[in-house]
Amino acid sequence: MNVPHRDLPRIVIIGCGFAGLKLAKSINTKNYQVVLFDKNNYHTFQPLMYQVASAGLEPDSIVYPIRKVFNKKENFHFRMADVHEVDAEKKRLHTSVGTLDYDHLVMATGAISNFFGMENVEKYSMPMKSLVEALNLRSVILQNFEKALNSSDMQEQDALMSFVIVGGGATGVELAGALAELKRYILPKDYPDLDIRRMQIHVVQGADRLLPGMSAKASADSERFLRKMGVNIWLEVRAQDYDGTTVYTNKETFQAKTLIWTAGVKGAPTAGLNAAQTNGGRVLVNAFNQVNGHQSIFAIGDVAAMTSEELPYGHPMLASVAVQQGVHLGKNFNRLAKQKEMTPFTYKDKGTMATVGRNLAVVDMKRFKFGGWFAWLMWMFVHLMLLVDFRSRLVVFVNWAWSYLFYDKGTRLIVRKVKDKTAVDCKEEDSVAV
Amino acid sequence: MNVPHRDLPRIVIIGCGFAGLKLAKSINTKNYQVVLFDKNNYHTFQPLMYQVASAGLEPDSIVYPIRKVFNKKENFHFRMADVHEVDAEKKRLHTSVGTLDYDHLVMATGAISNFFGMENVEKYSMPMKSLVEALNLRSVILQNFEKALNSSDMQEQDALMSFVIVGGGATGVELAGALAELKRYILPKDYPDLDIRRMQIHVVQGADRLLPGMSAKASADSERFLRKMGVNIWLEVRAQDYDGTTVYTNKETFQAKTLIWTAGVKGAPTAGLNAAQTNGGRVLVNAFNQVNGHQSIFAIGDVAAMTSEELPYGHPMLASVAVQQGVHLGKNFNRLAKQKEMTPFTYKDKGTMATVGRNLAVVDMKRFKFGGWFAWLMWMFVHLMLLVDFRSRLVVFVNWAWSYLFYDKGTRLIVRKVKDKTAVDCKEEDSVAV
Repeated sequence: MNVPHRDLPRIVIIGCGFAGLKLAKSINTKNYQVVLFDKNNYHTFQPLMYQVASAGLEPDSIVYPIRKVFNKKENFHFRMADVHEVDAEKKRLHTSVGTLDYDHLVMATGAISNFFGMENVEKYSMPMKSLVEALNLRSVILQNFEKALNSSDMQEQDALMSFVIVGGGATGVELAGALAELKRYILPKDYPDLDIRRMQIHVVQGADRLLPGMSAKASADSERFLRKMGVNIWLEVRAQDYDGTTVYTNKETFQAKTLIWTAGVKGAPTAGLNAAQTNGGRVLVNAFNQVNGHQSIFAIGDVAAMTSEELPYGHPMLASVAVQQGVHLGKNFNRLAKQKEMTPFTYKDKGTMATVGRNLAVVDMKRFKFGGWFAWLMWMFVHLMLLVDFRSRLVVFVNWAWSYLFYDKGTRLIVRKVKDKTAVDCKEEDSVAV
Repeated sequence: MNVPHRDLPRIVIIGCGFAGLKLAKSINTKNYQVVLFDKNNYHTFQPLMYQVASAGLEPDSIVYPIRKVFNKKENFHFRMADVHEVDAEKKRLHTSVGTLDYDHLVMATGAISNFFGMENVEKYSMPMKSLVEALNLRSVILQNFEKALNSSDMQEQDALMSFVIVGGGATGVELAGALAELKRYILPKDYPDLDIRRMQIHVVQGADRLLPGMSAKASADSERFLRKMGVNIWLEVRAQDYDGTTVYTNKETFQAKTLIWTAGVKGAPTAGLNAAQTNGGRVLVNAFNQVNGHQSIFAIGDVAAMTSEELPYGHPMLASVAVQQGVHLGKNFNRLAKQKEMTPFTYKDKGTMATVGRNLAVVDMKRFKFGGWFAWLMWMFVHLMLLVDFRSRLVVFVNWAWSYLFYDKGTRLIVRKVKDKTAVDCKEEDSVAV
């Protein structure tokens, strides 16, 4: 591979999500050469992905060119490539653009959708773990209404206008709220020939409450907000099968042409790595994010499970954990370069939040837990500030302000037409043509 | 087709470009039912399309949801569909969503790329006549640099970094300028491992000057501006063949993995219409935009050729002609409803302009012809004001200001990966998956 040789130890990072991005930024490249791989040329700000899927934002608001982040970094090399396999013995990585030897390897490969072996659900549902999947979902939602217009079969129309979201975590709740806003403010104006009151939004949640990672108050508030917005919530209901139209669960069945899968994720470690994993496919690491049994291989973020007595399954799969682990490992590399010992990672919980709709959000902080208008303002402010640059912030702010003032969403565009009425083959499929 | 029956004459419009959009807006739907077809659910502001291709703007800045434009219009129905064929005798239209009878039919179907029978050029080149093609071009430009990084063959690297634009009209000139800015301000920072000075931008123009539709001063100015920006200009050179790497012309040959085709367009009339056409596939119409020989069928915009002694080939294929013909025909329909006679169309030339780069544009007005900084300001102001709504204007303004202040372009994202090094099958191919 065309990477210049330097007389510096080489750190290779796989994945430019929150963990990989922060790590690469934190490493002092006076002491190391850094090579970063990602299959895309952009970093994705996942917390706002549902706004792309629901026609509120365009990709450039939530994804950011990786090369731009590292414009001024010396001894840093980004390669857009698929990583195929790691050879831990030879300390070598096999990728779609050649092989590369490393001194230290960091897996920041994140998580992928977990369908728990339900093949039909995997085949016909729409996941939302990547930008491309979010864009596909946006197209499918809008295409369904275009199709409903041309159908004279009431049952088919209803199925086209029904959306089942499996999973009541933050992604499921936020997407349900966004769909409810489309139903209330936008679709009746866009489709006067359809009776949009027939549109159904269902959230199917296996646990006995929404947002199980947050406080009981947040669960109750978000459920109340969503119900008020007309969303149907089904607790302790688990999806079991789906044929593209009928969703089978352990209780109800639903007729819906769109099943959106936000119910589960699993770690996505690189192939070839021989290391202990949790049931959820996360690689076990020690307190320095070192993969058990591998001195030179680290794992950070969603793919890593740093288990302990208090955390038998590792930290929650959250952006804030990934960010902190990335920064921390970067500092540890910098310490190693100065012959200092690494320090163990500790997670600082700064709170969690989720938004439901206009003026409605829930926030859990150590001392305060609150929901409603102020939580919503805080959610918006925090997310605006987390965006990578000022241009994205301005563009997102313009879109949010417009949307708030005029009850409008600007990007209801079917750019990538998704074929066939069911979501067959709408998975990560970001290539056009043959 | 599910279009409600009204006791009103039905006007069916095919195509929602500038002509179709303005027409549909102008018709008084107290007197008519209007049904509008387009294969997309958005209207495209074509003059800024090259900014999507060159990573300056996202789709939502230049395309606009059609349903939103007509939110409040009564007796108006939009259907996203492909129109297959017109049956003039039965006054009936066959589409992908069913058949529909019309009282008046208006073809506003625009123009498509014309490759003048050169099959290889059609196969391997990238056109830029639709949003999807512009997005594909953006991906190809960026993917080529990613590929060049991984190549150790100097010739291949050079070909990957070479761009031949065939056609020196406004689209060709504007795109060449945008590529030159990428070369100068952005790519050297993004790809420090490549010698970006080796990047070549060629404009191949058959005529003896650029912008042949504008004044001699505009031609000379734009040529001077482009040469100063490092663009190679080849006048009186015509592309003849292309194999994906070598561009053959009547004079030079060029090694380039990307050939961008802006050299020719032809009218795209609906199939089944039996009517006289120009060599360029434009349908001959009378002064009322009525298709010769068809009382109830009209054609407006690029697809129509309103020939006369002064205009043996019809009006130039410009947005301003399409806008004026759309508005005029709408007024004529409204006159017909009041039993008044139609009035003939006359084109008011308000001037033409093209931009080349920062602080550089050319403007032709009746009395003044000028180029440079003030022309550039005027170009920006006019184009901002032409955008459909305030949100797009704000978003475009933020992006332009950012780009101007920081020599940056925000959307260099490879969202739709285009397969294979040549542009095979990168044509209008806006579907994902099987």
